[in-house]
Amino acid sequence: MIELVGFDGDDTLWHSEGYYQAANSEFERIVGHYVDLADTRLHERLLATERRNLQLFGYGAKGMTLSMLEAAIEMTESRISVADLHQIITIGKDVLTHPVELLPGIRAAVEAVAQRHRVVLITKGDLFHQEQKVHHCGLADLFHRIEIVSEKDARTYQRVLTECAVNAEQFLMVGNSLRSDIAPVVHMGGWGIYMPYHVTWAHEVDTDFTAESPRVVQVAAADGIAAALSILDARAAA
Amino acid sequence: MIELVGFDGDDTLWHSEGYYQAANSEFERIVGHYVDLADTRLHERLLATERRNLQLFGYGAKGMTLSMLEAAIEMTESRISVADLHQIITIGKDVLTHPVELLPGIRAAVEAVAQRHRVVLITKGDLFHQEQKVHHCGLADLFHRIEIVSEKDARTYQRVLTECAVNAEQFLMVGNSLRSDIAPVVHMGGWGIYMPYHVTWAHEVDTDFTAESPRVVQVAAADGIAAALSILDARAAA
Repeated sequence: MIELVGFDGDDTLWHSEGYYQAANSEFERIVGHYVDLADTRLHERLLATERRNLQLFGYGAKGMTLSMLEAAIEMTESRISVADLHQIITIGKDVLTHPVELLPGIRAAVEAVAQRHRVVLITKGDLFHQEQKVHHCGLADLFHRIEIVSEKDARTYQRVLTECAVNAEQFLMVGNSLRSDIAPVVHMGGWGIYMPYHVTWAHEVDTDFTAESPRVVQVAAADGIAAALSILDARAAA
Repeated sequence: MIELVGFDGDDTLWHSEGYYQAANSEFERIVGHYVDLADTRLHERLLATERRNLQLFGYGAKGMTLSMLEAAIEMTESRISVADLHQIITIGKDVLTHPVELLPGIRAAVEAVAQRHRVVLITKGDLFHQEQKVHHCGLADLFHRIEIVSEKDARTYQRVLTECAVNAEQFLMVGNSLRSDIAPVVHMGGWGIYMPYHVTWAHEVDTDFTAESPRVVQVAAADGIAAALSILDARAAA
């Protein structure tokens, strides 16, 4: 039987990626004043800079902002104005202060799961920003544990399972990223409810894993989580 | 009796502040090309920008770098060159990749404490950078828990004490910051070993608390920790 249910934060409990994509669009608009948007594939070059810097910055809006500044300087061969670089810092600050808005039906979904299972919030990114979001989301009291982690891989999930004294077969993760929320948990022998968000950062879709597994149920929205959990709970008990 | 001993990370286990101060000096050298160093009190203005941004960025090198960029643009009224702003990003990256060098005698000191007490590492700052430092410091295996936190206040310490199932009277913290390591723990009823580092960030010395308390022993170096712990352990048992 499934004992412990983990919920992802960004784009599972609350809206997030839309703010990052709006920041990306604003970045492209600014840099587009200096370089030909069609020729230079700004989007790919920014993503390349961000991914190169992940090993130094980790995830989150501060690292994104520094990567945007670096990419803007490199792409424009230093022709960008100081005022525009200042504007990119403002874009990053705006991402850090965006309102925390819950996805439709997510409070009821977490409450329903929490009636029969221990629930943990496992969210990735900048510690300070994630703490602010957890604080403002209004759901913190529903969770038995809150884990803010720098990477969602087998090692991280194993640490959480050990802290909660369950094994992987007793653990299910709910999230919008196949790469970070579903694939590592299923590979460990756990279960997943995949709830895609309408936009996903390119880095998070970089996985060979698909939802075509008897250990995964895909749902369209939060009101499908309880039924998906029942299905997987029955499979786990079989 | 003291059950649990916490160790701070930066400037208690490993050298840190020196790298930040070197970054500060380099920042002042760059901005000094544009403004009169004596007139504008660069140091105070950077600190003011950093402290204002703490509520948005939290602690750590990425927030410091963004604050440096912002302060440099504001102080020079946008006269700074893009190449110099690029150099400031590089300064920040250098802080994130500085080598992790232990303070003299700290391994032996932690090992000695760990023979009779549970030891936890409680370190503040950027999650990703702190994890890298913990990984590279070579001491991680000595600790029963590792807590990377965004702020060291009573709430944070209480959470750690609850996780470790001890009360404040059974807890002692070893660290170089009166503000972050010693004052909140002593106010809660715990104990402190204050080991000043030769340089301290101005923000961390902003406290009314002094080490003149029967619950605090000041040591000059790591080889004084064991004796200080014995003194405070005897006081706690009395």
